[in-house]
Amino acid sequence: MTREELHGLMIRKKSFLCVGLDSDISKLPKHLLDAEDPVFEFNRQIIDATIEFTVAYKTNLAFYESRGVKGWQSLAKTIQYLNKFSEQVFTIADAKRGDIGNTSKLYAKSFFGIDDPVLNYDAVTVAPYMGEDSVSPFLKYKNKWVILLVLTSNKGAEDFQLLSHGNKKLYELVLEKSQQWGNADNMMYVVGATQAQMLKDIRKIVPEHFLLVPGIGAQGGNLREVAEYGLNNQFGLIVNASRSIIFASDKNDFADKAKDEAWIVQKEMQKLMRL
Amino acid sequence: MTREELHGLMIRKKSFLCVGLDSDISKLPKHLLDAEDPVFEFNRQIIDATIEFTVAYKTNLAFYESRGVKGWQSLAKTIQYLNKFSEQVFTIADAKRGDIGNTSKLYAKSFFGIDDPVLNYDAVTVAPYMGEDSVSPFLKYKNKWVILLVLTSNKGAEDFQLLSHGNKKLYELVLEKSQQWGNADNMMYVVGATQAQMLKDIRKIVPEHFLLVPGIGAQGGNLREVAEYGLNNQFGLIVNASRSIIFASDKNDFADKAKDEAWIVQKEMQKLMRL
Repeated sequence: MTREELHGLMIRKKSFLCVGLDSDISKLPKHLLDAEDPVFEFNRQIIDATIEFTVAYKTNLAFYESRGVKGWQSLAKTIQYLNKFSEQVFTIADAKRGDIGNTSKLYAKSFFGIDDPVLNYDAVTVAPYMGEDSVSPFLKYKNKWVILLVLTSNKGAEDFQLLSHGNKKLYELVLEKSQQWGNADNMMYVVGATQAQMLKDIRKIVPEHFLLVPGIGAQGGNLREVAEYGLNNQFGLIVNASRSIIFASDKNDFADKAKDEAWIVQKEMQKLMRL
Repeated sequence: MTREELHGLMIRKKSFLCVGLDSDISKLPKHLLDAEDPVFEFNRQIIDATIEFTVAYKTNLAFYESRGVKGWQSLAKTIQYLNKFSEQVFTIADAKRGDIGNTSKLYAKSFFGIDDPVLNYDAVTVAPYMGEDSVSPFLKYKNKWVILLVLTSNKGAEDFQLLSHGNKKLYELVLEKSQQWGNADNMMYVVGATQAQMLKDIRKIVPEHFLLVPGIGAQGGNLREVAEYGLNNQFGLIVNASRSIIFASDKNDFADKAKDEAWIVQKEMQKLMRL
């Protein structure tokens, strides 16, 4: 998906919501556990219920890998299902991969592969520690995206991301350096929502790029703050909510409740987008 | 596996060789492609042929993930096969994972999981960018290991790892900081073999820890240099070779040739270990 198409999708849906399919099998509604593939069945119903309000879906690989081969099967079915709506949703493999060049080529193939086996995502999250050649293989795919880890929302962000090198922090150097590798048409950045104040500084360095912001609850507590500092002339934000939407209910009505929660967030976003 | 057991294994085999099962299906001997699972069949024969000279096996996840569900099945069979020899080999999932705490818990479960599905490795490589809470969930498993990325052998290492913060480089800060999270009994470090000179500095910061050194060819070009700076009183090194061993031949004799190559490296290592 191109930047223009993503922007168009946001205008059409009046939303910049990403739903995180962190579909932990231990939290699924009990009645789904008899299905052939409970995780896929859950994802399918969540997607059907929320797609009207949602511009992106993000699968965090850990939730799938931790179930081994079965989890990988659920993941494959989920992305294949999402790809039936490929013009209606932007898809993100939240994999946080990163390895030396030849190996990163294979990771890129894993998530962007056009051939069988198809995990054909629009975007992959990538870790920056190993530098340019660990990132650039992902940038060789047309209309695909790297979403580079910059500033995360966890406590451990302080350990290295916020270290100062001269008068700049490491995450600022990651932002600056990575602009030599890609551009606003093939690279986005992960910026934790707890760091909303820092969005202001980040927007100075990357005014055009899309930012993926995880960690917003359905209440939209700091959604307004994120929007205030993060929105740009193409919106430029994809804001993720996971548990608050997908686990809004653990009963038979889980999909309806997920729809309600997604709708609440979408309405808030519509206001912030002035649409 | 405990540190003592790993040390004992090295004495017994007179080796600190790790064989990297980077089993790229496009490079396998043609006659294997008719097997039900060519990658597993290849791995099984490589393991049988080299186990006498090898203390550790490392599977780089990219080679498996890039084949989707099928690749994940080959991986599961391979680690299950290796675990038949669990007292004879140390097993490494070269996954370079790293995510916020709750997600890292799931990644730890993916690779250390005692329950079904079993990918029960001794160690996982982990990326440091997200800090302590992305690493510590892996350290909660008894007799399991984190192998933290510190200094990699690719060109991109210069982008961030070698940046100076005050009078220290980022990779040195990763070494120092991470010693507050784990110790020489549950943490190792990835140090690229092209950086052999830097091993001297690294050994000053972590004299006791095991180091995983990728990137040594069968010729042992800089194996002597790595050993000179890296060996400690428990050997303290696991040196990886992948293609030079597993793809020593692409004919029917591939396993025999792999054995020959592993044996050459083991003999060199035995000298360096003074055993």
